[in-house]
Amino acid sequence: MGEKAVVLLSGGIDSTTTLAIARDQGYEVYALSIDYGQKNHIELQKAQAVARFFKVKQHMITNVDLRPFGASALTTSQAVPKKRNLAEIGKRIPVTYVPARNTIFLSLALAWAEALGAAHIFMGANAMDYSGYPDCRPEYIRSFEKLANLATKAGVEGKTHYRIHTPLMELTKAEIIRQGLSLGVDYSLTHSCYDPTPEGMPCGRCDSCILRQKGFSKIGAHDPLEYV
Amino acid sequence: MGEKAVVLLSGGIDSTTTLAIARDQGYEVYALSIDYGQKNHIELQKAQAVARFFKVKQHMITNVDLRPFGASALTTSQAVPKKRNLAEIGKRIPVTYVPARNTIFLSLALAWAEALGAAHIFMGANAMDYSGYPDCRPEYIRSFEKLANLATKAGVEGKTHYRIHTPLMELTKAEIIRQGLSLGVDYSLTHSCYDPTPEGMPCGRCDSCILRQKGFSKIGAHDPLEYV
Repeated sequence: MGEKAVVLLSGGIDSTTTLAIARDQGYEVYALSIDYGQKNHIELQKAQAVARFFKVKQHMITNVDLRPFGASALTTSQAVPKKRNLAEIGKRIPVTYVPARNTIFLSLALAWAEALGAAHIFMGANAMDYSGYPDCRPEYIRSFEKLANLATKAGVEGKTHYRIHTPLMELTKAEIIRQGLSLGVDYSLTHSCYDPTPEGMPCGRCDSCILRQKGFSKIGAHDPLEYV
Repeated sequence: MGEKAVVLLSGGIDSTTTLAIARDQGYEVYALSIDYGQKNHIELQKAQAVARFFKVKQHMITNVDLRPFGASALTTSQAVPKKRNLAEIGKRIPVTYVPARNTIFLSLALAWAEALGAAHIFMGANAMDYSGYPDCRPEYIRSFEKLANLATKAGVEGKTHYRIHTPLMELTKAEIIRQGLSLGVDYSLTHSCYDPTPEGMPCGRCDSCILRQKGFSKIGAHDPLEYV
């Protein structure tokens, strides 16, 4: 088995493809999913299905409740915007932004990585098709990597040089899906919607659904999800 | 009222004194305590007492369970070392180190700060009497401050320049206590022990108890706590 890697896994297209890439690169995968009080709680079930599909070494779901902090349409009763056309997406940081979310997620991944003796953390951050999230940009990731090596016993003692891998950073959604398909990803296990029905059916009209559908159609591939 | 500040509050000497300093500097204080599965759960009650004493604007206790990650004597059944003399403390990073703990705590403080529209985060990190924790050093704090301004919508949009305040960084425990007393801190509300009795009585023999007792005795002040 290769080196250990912690992979942040939401069960969406990006994190699932990232997991497939980490595995393809020979890493022994420890998948970490985070229950942060997100409205689309279905994503944790999807993450479990993906973790099983890829037979990861361990899948941990940890809790951190971000709801009391408010300020995001993903964790409060604030409405998720619908039916924006693609030209609108990415112009401004949207209301689905969760304050400091990726910093919290990477911190938890770092805690587990240090406890496991893993030097590698994989995250599906993406700066191309992204909807304007500041904590998905390369300069943010490099800054976290520096921090990780100052923050930890293993980093400071020189035992471990932590690396944050973001293999999707420069890929479009279409390119991500193409790569995932070539690695055998079953996208019927994944989800993307910010605002699914209580049964977990995607709305088809939020930014995330629109980007997903566009990605599949661009490469002429079939999106296996059914939409409302 | 002055500017808003989020103050990380464990209810120990350092965070309590830091809160007193923030208030003395005119900040409107939002205290954040974190239930991370620590063995000395009593510290959350102490934090509440301190928050009430200082009449903070809001006190939030949020949950993040670090126990599944293991690797620390503060969150697992691993024994807390006792009766080390002062010369031993600080030589090596101790078993009470919790992987990435301050990074997780600062990330949560940052999330709340952004949601509140606060630019200031206070933390009682201290590099003098500290027991060798990598995430209490000035270079670590500066690195997190840089990250905070890259990670957030408010930081990236230039609305907020986040600052991490660590007013105790260069102070000895004795100097911290002296400053706290001058600001009216009631140290009978605080606790320090890594391994108290089930009733919350401090052991008097862990690193944290030893440093506390030494701090009080050095300035000829009375430690109001009773020890086992």
